[in-house]
Amino acid sequence: MTGAAQQAVLDAHYMARALELARRGHYTTHPNPRVGCVIVRDGQVVGEGWHVRAGEPHAEVHALRAAGELARGATAYVTLEPCSHHGRTPPCADALVNAGVARVVAAMQDPNPEVAGRGLQRLAQAGIACESGVLEGEARALNPGFLKRMEHGLPFVRVKLAMSLDGRTAMESGESQWITGPAARSAVQRLRAQASVVLTGADTVLADNARLTVRADELGLDAQQTALAMSRPPLRVLVDGRLRVPLDAAFFKAGPALVATCMAVEEQYANGPECLRVPGDDGQVDLHQLLVALAARGVNEVLVEAGPRLAGAFARQGLVDEFQLFIAGKFLGSSARPLLDWPLARMKDAPELKITEIRAVGDDWRVIAVPVSPASV
Amino acid sequence: MTGAAQQAVLDAHYMARALELARRGHYTTHPNPRVGCVIVRDGQVVGEGWHVRAGEPHAEVHALRAAGELARGATAYVTLEPCSHHGRTPPCADALVNAGVARVVAAMQDPNPEVAGRGLQRLAQAGIACESGVLEGEARALNPGFLKRMEHGLPFVRVKLAMSLDGRTAMESGESQWITGPAARSAVQRLRAQASVVLTGADTVLADNARLTVRADELGLDAQQTALAMSRPPLRVLVDGRLRVPLDAAFFKAGPALVATCMAVEEQYANGPECLRVPGDDGQVDLHQLLVALAARGVNEVLVEAGPRLAGAFARQGLVDEFQLFIAGKFLGSSARPLLDWPLARMKDAPELKITEIRAVGDDWRVIAVPVSPASV
Repeated sequence: MTGAAQQAVLDAHYMARALELARRGHYTTHPNPRVGCVIVRDGQVVGEGWHVRAGEPHAEVHALRAAGELARGATAYVTLEPCSHHGRTPPCADALVNAGVARVVAAMQDPNPEVAGRGLQRLAQAGIACESGVLEGEARALNPGFLKRMEHGLPFVRVKLAMSLDGRTAMESGESQWITGPAARSAVQRLRAQASVVLTGADTVLADNARLTVRADELGLDAQQTALAMSRPPLRVLVDGRLRVPLDAAFFKAGPALVATCMAVEEQYANGPECLRVPGDDGQVDLHQLLVALAARGVNEVLVEAGPRLAGAFARQGLVDEFQLFIAGKFLGSSARPLLDWPLARMKDAPELKITEIRAVGDDWRVIAVPVSPASV
Repeated sequence: MTGAAQQAVLDAHYMARALELARRGHYTTHPNPRVGCVIVRDGQVVGEGWHVRAGEPHAEVHALRAAGELARGATAYVTLEPCSHHGRTPPCADALVNAGVARVVAAMQDPNPEVAGRGLQRLAQAGIACESGVLEGEARALNPGFLKRMEHGLPFVRVKLAMSLDGRTAMESGESQWITGPAARSAVQRLRAQASVVLTGADTVLADNARLTVRADELGLDAQQTALAMSRPPLRVLVDGRLRVPLDAAFFKAGPALVATCMAVEEQYANGPECLRVPGDDGQVDLHQLLVALAARGVNEVLVEAGPRLAGAFARQGLVDEFQLFIAGKFLGSSARPLLDWPLARMKDAPELKITEIRAVGDDWRVIAVPVSPASV
């Protein structure tokens, strides 16, 4: 192997470790991205760090602190381009320069318009050797929400649905409890915990008395990750165009929530939860506008847990980035409720999806499917 | 390892080879079971055989012929107890005795009431050491239809359905062509080829002009297996209680077929295809009676390829042993046709299935699901 090829293998190796560290922030970094950093000198890891929470030090700072004087002349591996701007913490590019690091390898450029290459530029200007693009695909997969928000001004929207093998979510009567088993419910708890926002509709809250909270004992995580997840629960957002859900609903009693509505708030929720007024026709909240507003608040990932009507509206409007379908080994039959309210007349109108993963979750199965081209009907 | 443990490992090894040979008869042995045989002497395989077609020599005979004089004192591994009765060929138990075999290891007893232990008994009486139960699970899985017919007087019923991710089989208009891709269609061709009977209903033949034939170029098998499969195509059975399908339908022109009907045959099909009169209410063929009649004709495996009505009827009546669901990555929407016509009111009535396998087939996925307890509604 040539020296350059060897260096590429080593770079990938240390970047993989930095990605592993970044994943520890799975439940807590939002609105910031998940980032990990490894500092290597003479073939030895001398410092590691990961970003825990917005407002706290970035991954690079943790790693530099751990390395101390050993950072001088070392290589820093970072899963995202070091920042060049003063946010709630000073720029990491400066910290790397001050520590005397000789080389910086980033997995990807930061699409944040306040950075966007300027972090690496700053480093290069200080005489530090810079590279970007090592394990970039993995690094992008780590932060789908942050990237989508920076690149498109929208959060990443994940729709979770629990269905039977024949594609039904509830009986005609609405009866729907326990379609899937405990392992699937635990997986859903983790999906909630990783999201910035868990979003539902008035139908679900009224029919199922849903609270959509994260419950520590159902997460199925170790003590440290559970504590992290519980320290930063997602914001629960209720889409309720006409303010049909009463203030004494379990949903509101379970903690802070945001209500997205078309109505003037004073009418009903004067002393109630925070309300976000969103335009809409016929008392139906404009979902695209809502997502834009959430992104503006720093929301990276939205988990939609709603009935066929609201989930169907997100799907019909091409607003879904990923479906997570939990499939139970049963038939609910031909009179049961559909997966999504989305009537289609012609086969050519049927939206295509790429199934990216199918995996057993307890006695159930999880299908991850991604729209091939966003439908815009 | 003790000598006995070592012998057990060797026995499993040679039986695995015998099973591999038996699988070569996947498309041809019906109404007989798929059987393979290996003859081993002094740690050397001296003969191998598998059953090709009813009326032709059994696996043991092929293997003994290959072994010749070397069979004397050898061990014969057979995936099914050697037969003890004169069928279209003389009993294999006698052939093994005459060849001077010292030991016979069978994977399982033959449930055929004409054998049922008498083959092994015959061997033991001749002083041959006998064993049964080596890799029995695998041997049973090889012949689900033969075993079900022998044990319950019914064929093994496999229902194939092609559906979208939201559990739909066609648009409301009936439009349904090409839900799944070429790899899935090829897998369906192999399911047809391995079946004794491919069964469909008048709705499917009338709506889709379906022929349900096996097409050599779509099997995706090598030349030898393709030739074998084409040499013994399945019988195509049309369930048409009221004889609605006209004689000039492509289905009838495509080759021999059997029509299961409640009507007196003379009325319509006087010079047409073979008809089987089956009782039924309201012109609906009694499906259980039909299966009993097919089993009596030696039908081991039935592949049901029908619309939601007929497939739903098999499901509702608890007559399905296995569902093969080919799932395409698309949504057909909430007005599209259901997987099965099977209205259910309460969650507690929802039939449970065990998903035994999910596997990618080209761009589509195949789910194999087995009813947990046969529904009998």
